[in-house]
Amino acid sequence: MERTNGPLSRRGFVGVLGTIGAGLVGLVACGKEASPTVAAAAAVGATGTHQMAGMTGAATPVASGASGAMTADEMDRLHEAGIKAFPAKTAGLGGQRLAPRMEGEFKVFDLVAKRVQWEVEPGKLFEAWAYNGVVPGPELRVTEGDKVRVVVKNELAESTAIHFHGQVTPNAMDGVPFITQPPIKPGTNFTYEFTAKPAGTHMYHSHHNATKQVGMGLLGAFIVEPRDPKTRPAFDKEWTMVLSDGPHGFTINGKGFPATQPFAVKQGEKLLIRYMNEGQQLHPMHLHGMPQQVIARDGYLLPQPFLCDTLTVAPGERWEVIVEATELGTWAFHCHVLSHAESEHGMFGMVTALIVKE
Amino acid sequence: MERTNGPLSRRGFVGVLGTIGAGLVGLVACGKEASPTVAAAAAVGATGTHQMAGMTGAATPVASGASGAMTADEMDRLHEAGIKAFPAKTAGLGGQRLAPRMEGEFKVFDLVAKRVQWEVEPGKLFEAWAYNGVVPGPELRVTEGDKVRVVVKNELAESTAIHFHGQVTPNAMDGVPFITQPPIKPGTNFTYEFTAKPAGTHMYHSHHNATKQVGMGLLGAFIVEPRDPKTRPAFDKEWTMVLSDGPHGFTINGKGFPATQPFAVKQGEKLLIRYMNEGQQLHPMHLHGMPQQVIARDGYLLPQPFLCDTLTVAPGERWEVIVEATELGTWAFHCHVLSHAESEHGMFGMVTALIVKE
Amino acid sequence: MERTNGPLSRRGFVGVLGTIGAGLVGLVACGKEASPTVAAAAAVGATGTHQMAGMTGAATPVASGASGAMTADEMDRLHEAGIKAFPAKTAGLGGQRLAPRMEGEFKVFDLVAKRVQWEVEPGKLFEAWAYNGVVPGPELRVTEGDKVRVVVKNELAESTAIHFHGQVTPNAMDGVPFITQPPIKPGTNFTYEFTAKPAGTHMYHSHHNATKQVGMGLLGAFIVEPRDPKTRPAFDKEWTMVLSDGPHGFTINGKGFPATQPFAVKQGEKLLIRYMNEGQQLHPMHLHGMPQQVIARDGYLLPQPFLCDTLTVAPGERWEVIVEATELGTWAFHCHVLSHAESEHGMFGMVTALIVKE
Repeated sequence: MERTNGPLSRRGFVGVLGTIGAGLVGLVACGKEASPTVAAAAAVGATGTHQMAGMTGAATPVASGASGAMTADEMDRLHEAGIKAFPAKTAGLGGQRLAPRMEGEFKVFDLVAKRVQWEVEPGKLFEAWAYNGVVPGPELRVTEGDKVRVVVKNELAESTAIHFHGQVTPNAMDGVPFITQPPIKPGTNFTYEFTAKPAGTHMYHSHHNATKQVGMGLLGAFIVEPRDPKTRPAFDKEWTMVLSDGPHGFTINGKGFPATQPFAVKQGEKLLIRYMNEGQQLHPMHLHGMPQQVIARDGYLLPQPFLCDTLTVAPGERWEVIVEATELGTWAFHCHVLSHAESEHGMFGMVTALIVKE
Repeated sequence: MERTNGPLSRRGFVGVLGTIGAGLVGLVACGKEASPTVAAAAAVGATGTHQMAGMTGAATPVASGASGAMTADEMDRLHEAGIKAFPAKTAGLGGQRLAPRMEGEFKVFDLVAKRVQWEVEPGKLFEAWAYNGVVPGPELRVTEGDKVRVVVKNELAESTAIHFHGQVTPNAMDGVPFITQPPIKPGTNFTYEFTAKPAGTHMYHSHHNATKQVGMGLLGAFIVEPRDPKTRPAFDKEWTMVLSDGPHGFTINGKGFPATQPFAVKQGEKLLIRYMNEGQQLHPMHLHGMPQQVIARDGYLLPQPFLCDTLTVAPGERWEVIVEATELGTWAFHCHVLSHAESEHGMFGMVTALIVKE
Repeated sequence: MERTNGPLSRRGFVGVLGTIGAGLVGLVACGKEASPTVAAAAAVGATGTHQMAGMTGAATPVASGASGAMTADEMDRLHEAGIKAFPAKTAGLGGQRLAPRMEGEFKVFDLVAKRVQWEVEPGKLFEAWAYNGVVPGPELRVTEGDKVRVVVKNELAESTAIHFHGQVTPNAMDGVPFITQPPIKPGTNFTYEFTAKPAGTHMYHSHHNATKQVGMGLLGAFIVEPRDPKTRPAFDKEWTMVLSDGPHGFTINGKGFPATQPFAVKQGEKLLIRYMNEGQQLHPMHLHGMPQQVIARDGYLLPQPFLCDTLTVAPGERWEVIVEATELGTWAFHCHVLSHAESEHGMFGMVTALIVKE
């Protein structure tokens, strides 16, 4: 069972989408009845016959009544530019796995909280407060029962603390200043130690001045693999999606569309998606094309999985779903609060894509 | 098993409510101890004895401290007027079933997207962008496995596209401009073709400039009946409730109370309610009087149904519930985000009623 | 099986927290490497060894870049003051059980709706519209099948009515003015009568001008114990949490942190938590330290309980969960919409704590 964490590179996505785009452009340009299936089949192996647009009436945009002050063509150009730019290059990539160092029986992770400039979309730089310079912070991944040590150095201008959201830790390691520990003052550090449990998809984030600090980026995935993999459903690849909606806008893994990362799988593969909401709003995540089989909530396996196509993730919740990649093509994947995903200027924010290849 | 889609006419509702209203008015007017059960029993067959209001103290409204600048009586008159007006007549009724024409083995639906004036409440006209002139667009209903063709003509001033939300279609039919098709330019058309699957309650709506276009009304129900009806729970009647919260305000099936439609069933009947949220906010739908048995989510049958009285429907989600009409009477049915349903001027927006008759 | 409804007194909480606080202050003051486990173990019996903060680098707060205009120490002092004040004394305590008087076979509860001044946090007085002078109103508790009579006297300046949200009542007792009864005018009363069903966690609240009236405090818990206790999971103690977010701010049981009440249990006890949302926003309730086993929704037992650590409660919903108090210590318990729980000035609003003692 191959498990990779790497989203598709820009090169890979353009390779897939280019085929569709070219095909569609060709169809549009031909100016007569044609079948989009030609393009679709070339790109993704769809079958069947379909009829096509652009045949009747003059395609004359009427400015009056169009959104904003744009003509239809102007609006479409903006939308197209967004798609063509996807996945756009930006500096920095958060959520990459941090290899622990071993200290005796402990898996040790070093985190430094500090201010950085973070490029959310091309050219859109925000001040972020980040672990190890990235948003989300590095993924910390251990196995159920591991002894874990996380050394936090605070290079922020204010105190902080980390709560390992979802882990059952000794009370002193719970990360709530003045209840379970003193705040970690600027320039000092703190060491968290606990035994990883339960298995599943969890999070770590600031629990001091948290509305501000988590909003600014002090958050990350904490993944606990089961001691016995057979206790959880099998999958081929996995994709972690950290949702956020703070001062950096609507983001998936610290980036807004078109700088979000698509993910590619082969037809027939099972993809585990780990959702976590580090924001303050609901995000109903809608994957086009294939249902999501929901298997776990907050790391705990559901007694009975269920199917859906739009899974609402509330703040603080994590959900694990398995998507069986049965349908070929590039499938939009976005928050269905539409204002988190599209404006008159095109798609933005919480939009990405799942690409299913032969 | 009779299945009808027609909500109760204004005449029918007034017939039922009139009995209650008259009885209540009589009780209030009598100015002495009486039993509301008299009125209730006459109207809905309730049993038991109850004591009644208005007996002790002087019913002198004290203006100071009442909401707004109204007296209690002024406020009550506004509230009463709303109820008495329900269901109020407005021009236009969306969501009615569109009979397909057959082209070979295809069930063909013709949709025209265009601007219309839409009466959401009596006298409150909004610009809407609508399929076939109505909000929601006509209900498209097919059977699992049917070959479906939807011909969309764009008479808007800007481009558009349709996504069949919940259907597993070939990628080229997924409706996302510049990813799976070119946008449908003003004055042109596009034909979608796919085989209907899975069964259940689904939606169709714009996927281009969608925050605006769906908000303006480019949305509708897409219902896929199971090939074998025995695979889903039995019911006697069904009621589709499309929830929306865009520029037209808080609406159920394109109308705000008192222009929403109540629904009438006979005692003992099983009512299937199909919820779908085409808005951007959560709507916890609370039916008074009887629990809702939740049987399906996003069209997929739940492994185990559950009971509730308030079912939260998030944007993009669909839920199917069965209500067994055991309790006689007129039951309020509304979103429990109270500001979506009631102001100091009375009920408005996402309010309707289920009427259970002998 | 002992079942108590009394949250921990201020004295009890300070007793527990004082031990931790003193230990932590001591550790910080000592200015050298030490183990927080000493404090934690003394307070809550945690085991294991942990390393401690404050060792490396100069703890010099850098004002530039800190939140607001505060230094790190100023911010920390505000946060600490909030925790030290918890649970803060305020006038009035809502949600206490109201003993019914018997009238023949009826359990009778008398409620008076009137304006009061309500202290949400120390020194923060709001006008509230309350049942019997408290927010939430008194808890009404009966047993499934009981005959219930609720006599409501309206001493407000506007009309009102009560809906027993979740109860299956005769239509005339449903509490919706102009549909099932006339409004209860100022200075008059109304008597509700019904047989209590179904069992579980329900609510009573105004259903007239309800956005305003419920927001102002006309709400309370209506608990129906099962006729046969064996039909529901066993527990040792129970805690009702009424969530609200209206004009009084973000509150649990009518109070904002630090005036919220913590709850104490002994290690090994099973705590039933009854959530109900009387507000207009979602509140994902996150208990630190131990999972929540979700057993019922809107009073109805789930066909299969599930585990989570963050349970989202939408307006109008009730949820019952059981927490097995396995982990010693003081555990933060808060809404995970962080802006409902923490600002730069410290924790506020929807924050409380579960204390697990030996």
